[in-house]
Amino acid sequence: MAERLKRSGLLGELSAEFAGTLILILFGCGVVAQVIAGGALTDPPGGLGDHDSIAWAWGLGVTLGVYVAARLSGAHINPAVTLALAVFKGFSWRKVIPYTLAQTAGAFVAALLVRWNYTEALAKADPGHTLKTQFVFSTLPANGNTGLPVHEWGAFRDQVIGTAILLLLIMALTDLLNDPPKANLAPFVIGLVVVAIGMAFGTNAGYAINPARDFGPRLASFITGYDDAWRDQYGNFYFWVPIVGPLVGGVLGAGLYKVFIGRFLPAAEPEPPGRVPAPEE
Amino acid sequence: MAERLKRSGLLGELSAEFAGTLILILFGCGVVAQVIAGGALTDPPGGLGDHDSIAWAWGLGVTLGVYVAARLSGAHINPAVTLALAVFKGFSWRKVIPYTLAQTAGAFVAALLVRWNYTEALAKADPGHTLKTQFVFSTLPANGNTGLPVHEWGAFRDQVIGTAILLLLIMALTDLLNDPPKANLAPFVIGLVVVAIGMAFGTNAGYAINPARDFGPRLASFITGYDDAWRDQYGNFYFWVPIVGPLVGGVLGAGLYKVFIGRFLPAAEPEPPGRVPAPEE
Amino acid sequence: MAERLKRSGLLGELSAEFAGTLILILFGCGVVAQVIAGGALTDPPGGLGDHDSIAWAWGLGVTLGVYVAARLSGAHINPAVTLALAVFKGFSWRKVIPYTLAQTAGAFVAALLVRWNYTEALAKADPGHTLKTQFVFSTLPANGNTGLPVHEWGAFRDQVIGTAILLLLIMALTDLLNDPPKANLAPFVIGLVVVAIGMAFGTNAGYAINPARDFGPRLASFITGYDDAWRDQYGNFYFWVPIVGPLVGGVLGAGLYKVFIGRFLPAAEPEPPGRVPAPEE
Amino acid sequence: MAERLKRSGLLGELSAEFAGTLILILFGCGVVAQVIAGGALTDPPGGLGDHDSIAWAWGLGVTLGVYVAARLSGAHINPAVTLALAVFKGFSWRKVIPYTLAQTAGAFVAALLVRWNYTEALAKADPGHTLKTQFVFSTLPANGNTGLPVHEWGAFRDQVIGTAILLLLIMALTDLLNDPPKANLAPFVIGLVVVAIGMAFGTNAGYAINPARDFGPRLASFITGYDDAWRDQYGNFYFWVPIVGPLVGGVLGAGLYKVFIGRFLPAAEPEPPGRVPAPEE
Repeated sequence: MAERLKRSGLLGELSAEFAGTLILILFGCGVVAQVIAGGALTDPPGGLGDHDSIAWAWGLGVTLGVYVAARLSGAHINPAVTLALAVFKGFSWRKVIPYTLAQTAGAFVAALLVRWNYTEALAKADPGHTLKTQFVFSTLPANGNTGLPVHEWGAFRDQVIGTAILLLLIMALTDLLNDPPKANLAPFVIGLVVVAIGMAFGTNAGYAINPARDFGPRLASFITGYDDAWRDQYGNFYFWVPIVGPLVGGVLGAGLYKVFIGRFLPAAEPEPPGRVPAPEE
Repeated sequence: MAERLKRSGLLGELSAEFAGTLILILFGCGVVAQVIAGGALTDPPGGLGDHDSIAWAWGLGVTLGVYVAARLSGAHINPAVTLALAVFKGFSWRKVIPYTLAQTAGAFVAALLVRWNYTEALAKADPGHTLKTQFVFSTLPANGNTGLPVHEWGAFRDQVIGTAILLLLIMALTDLLNDPPKANLAPFVIGLVVVAIGMAFGTNAGYAINPARDFGPRLASFITGYDDAWRDQYGNFYFWVPIVGPLVGGVLGAGLYKVFIGRFLPAAEPEPPGRVPAPEE
Repeated sequence: MAERLKRSGLLGELSAEFAGTLILILFGCGVVAQVIAGGALTDPPGGLGDHDSIAWAWGLGVTLGVYVAARLSGAHINPAVTLALAVFKGFSWRKVIPYTLAQTAGAFVAALLVRWNYTEALAKADPGHTLKTQFVFSTLPANGNTGLPVHEWGAFRDQVIGTAILLLLIMALTDLLNDPPKANLAPFVIGLVVVAIGMAFGTNAGYAINPARDFGPRLASFITGYDDAWRDQYGNFYFWVPIVGPLVGGVLGAGLYKVFIGRFLPAAEPEPPGRVPAPEE
Repeated sequence: MAERLKRSGLLGELSAEFAGTLILILFGCGVVAQVIAGGALTDPPGGLGDHDSIAWAWGLGVTLGVYVAARLSGAHINPAVTLALAVFKGFSWRKVIPYTLAQTAGAFVAALLVRWNYTEALAKADPGHTLKTQFVFSTLPANGNTGLPVHEWGAFRDQVIGTAILLLLIMALTDLLNDPPKANLAPFVIGLVVVAIGMAFGTNAGYAINPARDFGPRLASFITGYDDAWRDQYGNFYFWVPIVGPLVGGVLGAGLYKVFIGRFLPAAEPEPPGRVPAPEE
């Protein structure tokens, strides 16, 4: 990835991070809007998808956002990825803040577009613009469900674990010394990581696993009528959890990749004699 | 793609566009017929798939239609794609109308086949051939649901946004200067784009995002007993929305790809010294 | 494919067709047993999958059966494929009957294994071994649903259309002069064809689209207690429909591929100067 | 695979088996915790996925666990795989026990993490820590459902069949003399095998098909409050079934691959004249 970053100036990199995260959030907030707001209005309710649709569309959003941005910026589209790559892969620390801002801006604009496109559905399904559809944009402990008593710290734990899994796998799937997918299909498999996290670690905190994914849309909802956007269903300030949890978890997971796998890999792949370099190398 | 078009005459190109769009609509209208008409007759109702089946089968229809047509015509199978490629990629303007007609004809014939195959189910589930099963063939605001107050303009907005996303991603996934999937798997990933659009942008207007997909089947239903095919559930002429919206959105999205990504890409990929050209190049 | 067939003797080819079809039917009849018989016994009912599970597992069964058999036999695993390849691709007519017998034997043995593994569930959910669970093994018009008035001819029409789609796409996805998937992923995409057919053309006749898939398991169920295996819910002899329909439809679809696509393709792909042959060629 | 194992010492191999199985079980037990414990608490119940989510997340867990471990250890992540490779592929018998212990340890730690992350949901949905949520960690006959009278031997039969299918397909998908997926996508397709087994062979015994997958989490649940972890819903000792069944079935399935396919394959692939070796070879 580091090599790619030389090919264009910083402006191109930031434009790619903006566009890649925009695509991610268009699909991500879009599918929750469809399932939660649109689906509440069908007869019978639930006619526009369910929790699995949410898992698939978020995962596909990751795949597609990565394909958009990969050449120019390496397609982090997530500050937790950017931070972990700075810590472990030599990504320039000077670019961490600019990347994070570009990612958050892309998420913010995408959330405004979803907010606009689903104006009628959100107004009809939740006229008071409460936490019920706030959840379309940003995450809540237990997805806002008071029947499952998860609070900030249970959600924080979940975000650390979920993002650690994400980064351990991103490291594994992009390390050419390990055994990653070829034919430039790693973005597809990385999207499947997010599908699986949505299915297996979506209960406690709605699997933000990405500070930009959560903060950008939270801000977009706040300035468009969701006055309680910063608090959870118990009235506690919550917005820091899906920011700090993923940053901690991402570094943890990338470090665990080094511990379990990375340190055992040879420094470089030996070439078989007479072998023609593979296209992807 | 432009290069491919030289390999056969225009007749081959139009035949491929016809066949590719035929495959798309066989799966696309087929799955809605199965879920809406067939599923209404199972005990309990809903036994033949749900909204996610619709998203998957439409997406797979795109993948498969593209594989059928790609060699001969570049596999647009959508006038919004054809128009955007003419505006931004040098596709011949002289071919825009022929391609559009071939696509619409393929969609029309496919819809007739679905109409024929589902004769019994459509007659039993909706004897009056109303908008309830008209929706099998062509789209309606809010999928015909009067519980969600979306009218022409809300649907138009949705079609512009949805098709802009589609074309931005098609541009990203087929631009060899960007980082597209290799091993000729871009058609698979482009199908996943449509799966995700169906899951995230299917509420307001049934995600036609393709004028041929909507107009061809609408005409097929009209001449086979659906007298109200041109109007929506509020009695308004609606058929223009899934034609004009996608054409506008497609050009917009392809342009945004240029703005966010394309203009930052190098003019041509430099070859590493001594490198063997990859098979896909 | 023709080239592959020389690499081993006929015994190896037939063994591969047997094993590939066995894998297909283990997943295919297995998933219907799980959803229909197992699912009828959960609390609430339906806890072991639904129609989409059936579509996915049949499609994955095709993918996996093809990977098992591809090297030795070309992986037809379907007499409709064998017949269409004999008509259009020079597959040896002398092998058509042996291949068909091997495929049917594989399907028969797989169905016996499913019958054995699901003994308890089938006995509990349907003690009389009626058409309700006969459907686990072989197909019925409208999937046995009397609420949808489809009879032999409606099912025959559906089988012709469905198998024509299957063969048109198999031809497109395996024709090296067209633009098939590389990296040996055509079996994956061909599996997706069957997923999509299950979602879009599974209403009228349960998408056998394969005479061996239907006849082998039908025979297996007949000799293990399903006395009415040859008739449908109206008492009519039905077993010929998913045999004759697919054979007719397959030849039709493969022919349409020639008409729409094949005849426009160049006889052989010209090599760019200095190009290294790709691995798959 | 054997070749890979030379690249690092045994410690690296065991670390990879530990990490790969950890990833598998994080997704595997995670998704069941989400669907069973989390989903029991939503309003209406069932809002966090269903049986298909379980099938997909287990399958994706296999794919991702294999990508993590493949380079260092060959990614068995299952003692049934390790045993079958020792019997049929020359995998060192001295490593069978160490690999099995590393796999079981990875599964054990992953299950503790899931236990910890889902503390609140498990306590709320099943305060007594009974078999209802024991099933989150380890398998039961008929998934604990007394409505389906499957006991140890029915479950044993199912585990033999299911693991035989798994190993037959793993052998087919990794045998370079057969026709496996290229571009290093076999891990993706092997994950799809597990998706399909979950959909088609998940009724009788919850498709452990992996002794480490079952024993590690069973032990983790036992030491964290599940006192009945070793018995089934009828009070019988059950834990041996998903250990012995998969070991027997795996050897059986790998042997059947040899019988049906392997013995017919040429000893080595002949090179076409002048051909450049493919990257994967």
